[in-house]
Amino acid sequence: MRNIKMVVAYDGSRYKGFQRLRDNDMTIQGKLETVLSKMTGEEIEIIGSGRTDMGVHSHGQVVNFKTKFEDSIPKMQRYLYEYLPEDIVVKEMEEVDERFHSRYNVKTKTYLYKIDNNKFHDPFTRKYALHINKKLNLELMIEASKYLVGEHDFTSFASSKSKKKSNIREIYAINIKENKNLIEIYIEGNGFLYNMVRIIVGALIEVGLGKKKPIDIKEMLELKDRTKASETALAKGLSLYKVKY
Amino acid sequence: MRNIKMVVAYDGSRYKGFQRLRDNDMTIQGKLETVLSKMTGEEIEIIGSGRTDMGVHSHGQVVNFKTKFEDSIPKMQRYLYEYLPEDIVVKEMEEVDERFHSRYNVKTKTYLYKIDNNKFHDPFTRKYALHINKKLNLELMIEASKYLVGEHDFTSFASSKSKKKSNIREIYAINIKENKNLIEIYIEGNGFLYNMVRIIVGALIEVGLGKKKPIDIKEMLELKDRTKASETALAKGLSLYKVKY
Repeated sequence: MRNIKMVVAYDGSRYKGFQRLRDNDMTIQGKLETVLSKMTGEEIEIIGSGRTDMGVHSHGQVVNFKTKFEDSIPKMQRYLYEYLPEDIVVKEMEEVDERFHSRYNVKTKTYLYKIDNNKFHDPFTRKYALHINKKLNLELMIEASKYLVGEHDFTSFASSKSKKKSNIREIYAINIKENKNLIEIYIEGNGFLYNMVRIIVGALIEVGLGKKKPIDIKEMLELKDRTKASETALAKGLSLYKVKY
Repeated sequence: MRNIKMVVAYDGSRYKGFQRLRDNDMTIQGKLETVLSKMTGEEIEIIGSGRTDMGVHSHGQVVNFKTKFEDSIPKMQRYLYEYLPEDIVVKEMEEVDERFHSRYNVKTKTYLYKIDNNKFHDPFTRKYALHINKKLNLELMIEASKYLVGEHDFTSFASSKSKKKSNIREIYAINIKENKNLIEIYIEGNGFLYNMVRIIVGALIEVGLGKKKPIDIKEMLELKDRTKASETALAKGLSLYKVKY
């Protein structure tokens, strides 16, 4: 069996999320598996690095699948490019060691959250950025983000739907940039709880708006209380940016 | 009468172009006039700095209109923001001298053309950039662009539909930038013939692909022959970027 790894970008706007649902094709996994199965004549099941929620995008989701199909990688990639909808693109494709597993072997994941901080929203990023018309204070947001970097119990930054045994995760870096009122927040970590990135962004936005102080983020962490979580920032601003192995 | 000037950004994907058509609302002008007329109770007619074709976008189209309506500018702008579709945004609005005319008073216009030069297209710019999967040679394109700067007879770079008396125009600057395989071509001039920007971009692409040499652009100019025009680059990559007065 060949083990094929792919890096997949998608505009999540139209989809119910990454994970295949019963009786429904409008998922990223569903679309990929349908085309891969048609191409190979096998029933292909893909493994993703993790799920992305409804409306969340990807610049670098990684998936792998096993197949006996013998066509060359460029030929397969060309086929996928032709038959996938234009909002799902296989950017990279390669044959990897049979032991490679997209989910188990993840070392770090980086998410990108975009905020349109123009007074009136930019029509060109309206599907890919959260619009906030009040000016955010970036310096305060950067100050607050520093409390989150490192190994912490992120219970206060997880959805109550999160059912992981341990809520301890490590964030390696948070980078916040701004260019022409488009703010980009990159968060790299070894793993994320359910809604964790969107709740972190929600908290940073509160800091940027002056509703919370940077030091409050430190307190939130220490409380380890999910009822203390900030509002979850909208899905459309979020993208799975990069997965490292 | 008050004379109101507005800077309007729009995603042209859904529209039949800027100019109002009979019996059809799917134009930028049509949408703006409908909302403005509803707001003021008057029959508002707007003047644009010029037309944009079907599918062409705008970061900085300028329009003006006359009205007796007395609401403050911020109140009007808020109203427009609420009632216009989300792909048309009035970014700036101000009251100007009664003699100001959006079309007659134009000093320069800048157009932006975007090319996605990734091997496989980026799903996030698919509606706003022309995808070319073969690597373009930017240095050659920049060299070629220099022949176009200055005052020239642009007959060879105009659609045969162009019916202007004179085909002499001046291009002040062409700037070509690249970032992560997204190429941006900015063209500033005192005026443009019908399809001129898209034909110039078409010619620069031929140079970038090695189908034409930079010097061929100089020859094309000198021929003053509209049958020599390069292919017109697709509308979706084009945006009216800025209008100066």
